[in-house]
Amino acid sequence: MRCDTIWTNARLATMAPHAEGIGVTEHGMIAATDGKILYAGPEADAPALQGRVVTDCEGRWITPGLVDCHTHLIHAGNRAREFELRLAGASYEEIARAGGGIASTMAATRAASEDDLVASALPRLDALIGEGATTVEVKSGYGLDLASELRMLRAARRLGRERPVSIAATFLGAHALPPEFAGDADGYIEHICQVMLPEVVREGLADAVDAFCEGIGFSAQQTERLFTAARAHGLPVKLHAEQLSNLHGAALAARFGALSADHLEHLDLAGIEAMAASGTVATLLPGAYYFTRETVLPPIAALRAAGVPIALATDCNPGTSPLTSLLLTMNMGATLFRLTVEECLAGVTRNAARALGFTDRGTLQAGQRCDLAIWDVEHPSELVYRMGANPLHARIWSGQ
Amino acid sequence: MRCDTIWTNARLATMAPHAEGIGVTEHGMIAATDGKILYAGPEADAPALQGRVVTDCEGRWITPGLVDCHTHLIHAGNRAREFELRLAGASYEEIARAGGGIASTMAATRAASEDDLVASALPRLDALIGEGATTVEVKSGYGLDLASELRMLRAARRLGRERPVSIAATFLGAHALPPEFAGDADGYIEHICQVMLPEVVREGLADAVDAFCEGIGFSAQQTERLFTAARAHGLPVKLHAEQLSNLHGAALAARFGALSADHLEHLDLAGIEAMAASGTVATLLPGAYYFTRETVLPPIAALRAAGVPIALATDCNPGTSPLTSLLLTMNMGATLFRLTVEECLAGVTRNAARALGFTDRGTLQAGQRCDLAIWDVEHPSELVYRMGANPLHARIWSGQ
Ligand SMILES: [Zn+2]
Ligand SMILES: [Zn+2]
Repeated sequence: MRCDTIWTNARLATMAPHAEGIGVTEHGMIAATDGKILYAGPEADAPALQGRVVTDCEGRWITPGLVDCHTHLIHAGNRAREFELRLAGASYEEIARAGGGIASTMAATRAASEDDLVASALPRLDALIGEGATTVEVKSGYGLDLASELRMLRAARRLGRERPVSIAATFLGAHALPPEFAGDADGYIEHICQVMLPEVVREGLADAVDAFCEGIGFSAQQTERLFTAARAHGLPVKLHAEQLSNLHGAALAARFGALSADHLEHLDLAGIEAMAASGTVATLLPGAYYFTRETVLPPIAALRAAGVPIALATDCNPGTSPLTSLLLTMNMGATLFRLTVEECLAGVTRNAARALGFTDRGTLQAGQRCDLAIWDVEHPSELVYRMGANPLHARIWSGQ
Repeated sequence: MRCDTIWTNARLATMAPHAEGIGVTEHGMIAATDGKILYAGPEADAPALQGRVVTDCEGRWITPGLVDCHTHLIHAGNRAREFELRLAGASYEEIARAGGGIASTMAATRAASEDDLVASALPRLDALIGEGATTVEVKSGYGLDLASELRMLRAARRLGRERPVSIAATFLGAHALPPEFAGDADGYIEHICQVMLPEVVREGLADAVDAFCEGIGFSAQQTERLFTAARAHGLPVKLHAEQLSNLHGAALAARFGALSADHLEHLDLAGIEAMAASGTVATLLPGAYYFTRETVLPPIAALRAAGVPIALATDCNPGTSPLTSLLLTMNMGATLFRLTVEECLAGVTRNAARALGFTDRGTLQAGQRCDLAIWDVEHPSELVYRMGANPLHARIWSGQ
């Protein structure tokens, strides 16, 4: 049987759900055709296949292409100076008065054209791709008015045409309260449900709907209103939940069959049980934990005990996680959250794909998309262990 | 007047010692000849110069080439699996029994040829160089016998011939007690002073002498014996001091006019005052602080108040800081230690050069080596703020 490409002489970490550990396969081989994996396993067990292209991996390791399932990659402005001021002793208030904070990102994003948004996001996307990412989620949420949110989502779709990468676009209109609705969060949620969301759906710009459920964001009731509207449009939901306090957002999200609940530092046992029952992924964001010097850890042991799938993501955003490395994200997951190497690797492959609702990627198995990362390492544990190294040898997206 | 190269249309962070902040110079220019800076300053004030090569920097920022003043870059073996085991719950004892820990690095390093040591260090060196490093310190200390320590130092010298980078080699025979001297630390120190150090000096293999002064390392008395021998050979000293406990190593180092005292989490006021008086640099290693989940911070405010120069370094080593990024080191310095952007940038340029005894680099000033890093950033604060991005546009070492 003929196929497009065969990678021989490889060592695989298949990340297959029922494999032991990371699914180590020595003397492994992957065969692909039409962008899909035909075979991934030991060379000795492979069917007879003739590849049009045959690549000798010289013993290198192959993992599934990495998946970043929570980013705010698209945004305008630059908050490095704000970071500098804060280190020099300025208070959050002083920074807000100087025009900093999320308001500055919103203003810059509203002022940016679609081309501007794409151009400024590309270096961040390229950093992720350069470390083996093949699927990246991108949220709106800095426009906070109809035109600007649509522009952000169109820019997100554009990213997927500008680079060989899959982009999952998430509508996060309910990220913060825009000045036009100051003091009227209910009114803004109604505006989202009745004006913004229908237009987002009409243009096919979003793959999911997200919100920031928090004391400084939106209440559980407001979130529920939004989720009800999303469900009416047939869109899956996910939620920024329990980051700074416990509003029982994760349990609410689970009731709506959410793909994921994200952050979760203040998640309680009821929320964990609800997530376990609904199959909602816990997306942990150690970059934000680190950058904001958070000290409350997400309830890792309880999530593990309940069998909640754990994903890890960069949360790349200008205010609390200016991070564009999934390798470093894994190191932080291990170092700060004490996740195991296996949990870290599953967190940026199989479980991250699941957090985006994808069943066609995140493992090396026949029938999956042929999205691969090929690494110059002695063992995949090095991908978690090292800090600031990039041992990516090659990246394959959709078989190429 | 003719010169080799001119970089025009640049913005400079000169890091000059008496400049305000980071020495911002808009509309700046650098002219160099024979590997040295002839002029660095505003284009408007420049003397009449004709460069054989003129490079338009298109408004990019130039900083001094980065200096990593504390690394254990040369070592054999791989401790990623040990990291994995520890995350999976293995105790230090279990790991030691399984042949892990520094003993495993020593055994692998002793078994490695000079070529092996160079080959395994090059990817780590290349990671540093790829982010703008132009000077890198490299310590011995995993051989712990004469032949292996000499081999490590020869490999360090080789690195400087294999790549366009300056290598400062440090003899760290007093890193740990080798099995041949188990229970006899005094005897090992005598062996270092009478056998190893003279041979290191005879071959011209070291630029400084270092030791690990700690309960689990060597005592202050043993360190003093070593420093006395180093002084007799005319070699400057530096010290791993006050990392896990306070043995008053920094004050001892200061008495010997040490270039730097490094780590310093448990440094006391007397040590700070001694360092200030002797001009000893405080080299902080936030990567090790982060990776070992240390919770005792170095006394930053007191160091600042006393005017002790602060450097930052990767401490790249397989056990406690597998870090090969000075950019990430700066972010950790800011995020974990609350150093300002200015302190972080000075810590990997001017003060890091000083920690190695170099007066000819670390700033952009006439007469200095022309070691430059040219960055695609809007402001140098981004070099500290971002995590996992590498905005290096070009690196110049010795004018090229
Ligand atoms: Zn987020
Ligand atoms: Zn060290």
